[in-house]
Parts: sequence; C-alpha cells; structure tokens
Amino acid sequence: MHAITIPEPGGPEALVWAEVPDPVPGEGEVLVEVVASGVNRADLLQRQGYYDPPPGASPYPGLECSGRITALGAGVAGWAVGDEVCALLSGGGYAEKVAVPAGQLLPVPQGVDLVTAAALPEVTTTVWSNAFMIAHLRPGETLLVHGGASGIGTMAIQLAKAVGATVAVTAGSPEKLARCAELGADILIDYRKQDFVDELRRATGGSGADVILDIIGAKYLDRNVRALAVNGRLAIIGLQGGVKGELNLATLLNKRAAVTATSLRRRPLGEKASIVAAVREHVWPLIETGRVQPIVDRRIALPEAPEAHRVVAASGHVGKVLLLNG
Amino acid sequence: MHAITIPEPGGPEALVWAEVPDPVPGEGEVLVEVVASGVNRADLLQRQGYYDPPPGASPYPGLECSGRITALGAGVAGWAVGDEVCALLSGGGYAEKVAVPAGQLLPVPQGVDLVTAAALPEVTTTVWSNAFMIAHLRPGETLLVHGGASGIGTMAIQLAKAVGATVAVTAGSPEKLARCAELGADILIDYRKQDFVDELRRATGGSGADVILDIIGAKYLDRNVRALAVNGRLAIIGLQGGVKGELNLATLLNKRAAVTATSLRRRPLGEKASIVAAVREHVWPLIETGRVQPIVDRRIALPEAPEAHRVVAASGHVGKVLLLNG
Repeated sequence: MHAITIPEPGGPEALVWAEVPDPVPGEGEVLVEVVASGVNRADLLQRQGYYDPPPGASPYPGLECSGRITALGAGVAGWAVGDEVCALLSGGGYAEKVAVPAGQLLPVPQGVDLVTAAALPEVTTTVWSNAFMIAHLRPGETLLVHGGASGIGTMAIQLAKAVGATVAVTAGSPEKLARCAELGADILIDYRKQDFVDELRRATGGSGADVILDIIGAKYLDRNVRALAVNGRLAIIGLQGGVKGELNLATLLNKRAAVTATSLRRRPLGEKASIVAAVREHVWPLIETGRVQPIVDRRIALPEAPEAHRVVAASGHVGKVLLLNG
Repeated sequence: MHAITIPEPGGPEALVWAEVPDPVPGEGEVLVEVVASGVNRADLLQRQGYYDPPPGASPYPGLECSGRITALGAGVAGWAVGDEVCALLSGGGYAEKVAVPAGQLLPVPQGVDLVTAAALPEVTTTVWSNAFMIAHLRPGETLLVHGGASGIGTMAIQLAKAVGATVAVTAGSPEKLARCAELGADILIDYRKQDFVDELRRATGGSGADVILDIIGAKYLDRNVRALAVNGRLAIIGLQGGVKGELNLATLLNKRAAVTATSLRRRPLGEKASIVAAVREHVWPLIETGRVQPIVDRRIALPEAPEAHRVVAASGHVGKVLLLNG
C-alpha cells in the first residue's frame, strides 16, 4: 500500500507519499481500507519530531479515519467485512490501509457520509472524555472553549449546547466567532482584542467558567485559573502555548478548583474502548438526529498532506481538514 | 461567656481570653456548650491575620469542637438538648459556647469519650472529602500523605488502610515515622534525609502514587506531580510551603493526572452538610468498631491557647492538640 511517511522530521515537505508494507491486523483488530483521515495538530508535532508514536503504534501519522473493513483479526466480534466505519487510531491514518483495535471502531452515523465520518472520532472522544467524563459538565453550567472554531471547538460548542450548558468561546477573528455563534456559542471573545478573563466575568455576572476546555497550556494557565468559577474544572488537552506555567494554588484552593491534563493517544486500549463506547451511547444519537453536526473545512487528497498541514498550521480553517484516498 | 479573642493579629500571645457576648443560635442552628476544641494550622494563620473568618462566621478561632447541645434554633430536627456531639465549625470553637448549623453536627461515636471526640471533625471531613470524595482513592491504590504524623496524616493513614490502599508517608523524624508505621503506613520516608519522589518510585516499582494528600503546596508542586502515577490525583489541602509554584503540564498530560485544591471552611452549608453526612455513614462505623482511632497528642486548658499554638507551630506533636474548657 501507500502511506504518508516521515523519513526525517521537518516542515510540511517532510511528509512523503511512499510505498510501504501492508499492515496486518493482530488479535482483536480489524483491517480498514481508509477512505478519509482527519488532520490533527498532534500530527504536525509528530512530523516535526516532537511527538513520537507510542510503542506498538503505526509509525505513520493519522489519529482517525473512516473506511471499510476488509479483514478481521482473531477474536473480533460484532463487526464484519464490508462494514463502513470510522475509528480512533494511535497512528497510521494517513495511509491506504490501517489496522484498528475493534474497541476503537464506531459505525458511520446515519445521515453522515463515509468521508465526513472521518471528522468525528478525535473530536467526539476528546470532548466527551474531557468535558463530560472528567470535568462532568452539567446542564446550566458554563463551558469556556479556547479555539472555538477548531475541530475540537466546533464539536465542544454543539455538545455543550445539546446538554443545556452555556458556552463561551475564544477565537482570533470576527469571522470565526460568527461561525461559533451559528453553532450555538453564547459568549464570543476575540482573544486578539479582548481579555478573556475580564470578558467572561462580565458575561457571567462575575462567576466565571465551570469548565474550561483548553488547548493552550502554560501560556493560559494563570488566566484560566482566574477565569474559573467556584468548583471549576480546567481540562487541558493541548500545549500549544508551552509546557511550564505558574500555578497560583491559593486561587485554586479558594475556588476549590481542579486542573486536569490528558491525551487520548497513550491511553491503554481498555480506556480508549470505554470512551469510544460512551461516545457511541451519548454522542452518536445527537449526530443521527442532526442536533450535532461534523464541521469540515476542506478536503485534500492524501498525497497532498503537506498542503493540509500548511492549512492547519495557518489556523485559518474552521472545523476539520480531511485527507482523501483515491 | 468567655472566648479566646484576637484583638490584634500576631504571635501566640495575640490570643486573649476575654469575656464576650453569648452566641445566639439562628434558624437551623443549635447552641453547643463546648467541652473541647481541636487546634488546626488554619487557626495559627487566623491569629497572624492571614486567614479571616468567612462572612457570617464567628470572629473567634476554632474549626471544630465537642460538647453538649443546650438550645435549639428554629427548624432543627433530629437533635435534642442534652445530646453529646462533635461538630465542624466555620469558627468560634475556642469558646465556652458556639452556635452550629445542624448539618455540621455529628454524634459522639460509641467508644470515644466526649473530650476526644473534638479531635475528629476536621480530620475526618478533610480526609474523606479529599482522598475519597474528590480523589476517589480505591482499594489496591497507593496514597502518599505528606505530614503523616499530623492530625490529618494520622487519620489519612488509618482510613486508607481501612479501605485496602497502600499508604506512603513523609515525616521529619524516625520517631514520627515509627508512629505512622504503628498506624499502618507501609512506606516510610524521612523528608529531611530522603527524596520522596525517588523513595516512592523505588517502593512502588516505579509507578508512583495514585493519590497524594498534600499540605505543603507550591514548594512540593513539581515533586508531587513527578511522584504521581498514571491517572494520579494530587489533592492539595494546605499551603504551608507557599502559594505560587511551577506546574509542568507535559508531565501532568503524559500521566493524565489531576491537581485539585480545596478548603472546607468557605464551602456553602449544603456542601459541608453532605460531607458530614458521608463521614457519618462511612467513617463513623470504622471508629465505632475501633478500626480507626482518634489520635490525640495532648490536652491543654483553653485559656492556655497560646501554649497550644506554640506546640503546633513547633511541629513536635503527633496527631491532634486539644483545648479543654473548665
């Protein structure tokens, strides 16, 4: 088969379309013929040499895909050759074929086409596991999402609104904020012109955010803690703004607040499977009724992956960028 | 009545035994004639002017007591004049009488004398709410308790062992560590001579602590995060080592770990009542069967509160220091 390989870490041109051996599904895995794969910021880090695949994972980038099952490994039940699926991967999505643990498969939701389904696995599992399973966002609470127009952001807005939360977002342009508003966001903050702590306080009558979903990390740590409400939960899922930040424990203590940080990729199979099962139970029905929609910015042919990485790095997109096979 | 007052913040001599007006129980409160009151480090901060009582609380120090109910305010059910109780307070325990919200009352456990019962409310509610209700310590997991010989520490060791956890403690002398071992601690670390991160790693086969109960704050923040296991939870309940610390979010993220910080005193009445109810349900039976015991270092007459504060500040004690009326 062909796959996007990374012979040497570097810029977008480090992604090289090459012929490689076919993957072989192991016990409990299926082989998926990839139709589309989602681009994630973690892929850009992997390309730069900052985010090696975990042991046992495919060396090629790509953390999610959609496609058709073409073979079953030993001990797989509940799935059949020919099934159309989308899947959470620990790597290898930028390829014509990928081996996937069965616990990371999801059916293509009714009403969603097979290509678009590739936009769903990472954003639904990341948002559901963090905002709901870890931070326990509840109806009536306020969620602040940084990067509201990102793939994660567009899904977080819709899921939080669907459960009855108030949603605040930050984004870097009026156009992006307008798209967030269309998706249901209630409080719109242009981080280039406004202080999000001040704006959030004003918009919430001084109370702040019950949950913050953050992709920035260190650069926002102090401000995020200041933006939290009493009993607030800061869920960090990305470190685009650095790794080491000052934490004011007195502020945290006075608010009885929590800071969590997670990534999906390195979780054990069993944890990933339980998150995928929760997403299938709680999120899939919202997608199938049209209450929550996958948001796709553009589709690019898989061999043109360098162009897709340039688009994501430039941050002009809204929602997901997808790579297509064939 | 008489109470320990703080006319001007300062050293131990700032605590002045004085005649003051009797408290009057409001709606939902009872009046308790105080027999004994526990000393907490927060009282030392309040004496120094660093920890003002929350709005509506008694201006006098004292966050817990034991005694007898002498009057009921309006709307109190389930308690009667003459009942022997211990209670979690938002202040006012260093006095002959104190008004207490009924939700913060606990019966004196069978087998515990009325004076000793004053050693229980703060340590049981703090340990139960943090290690169990927030950090969800489970059987088979490892708890690290800093200050294992403190009031909090001696209760945390016993409760964690009672639920089947492994317990590691830090303390500042071999004598204190020996007392911790008597109470059931499995891993003993002298923080004056050993690096607790290294020692814990060695003793747990490299995995670290699933839950850390920390009273130090900033000074230990980085080391505590390093000492956490995958999926670990750091529960900060005191800031004896400062307020602002550097947090390595990459370490936190790679471990999918959580940092929480709480204090009991400023929690709303409803939250305090639910914690007290959980302690009565889960901890009181362990005390009544003798599985968990209150640990009292010494008893000092209430007018000698300055001496009690000197004892606690010197950190030579093991368990609780109690103040006695009459």
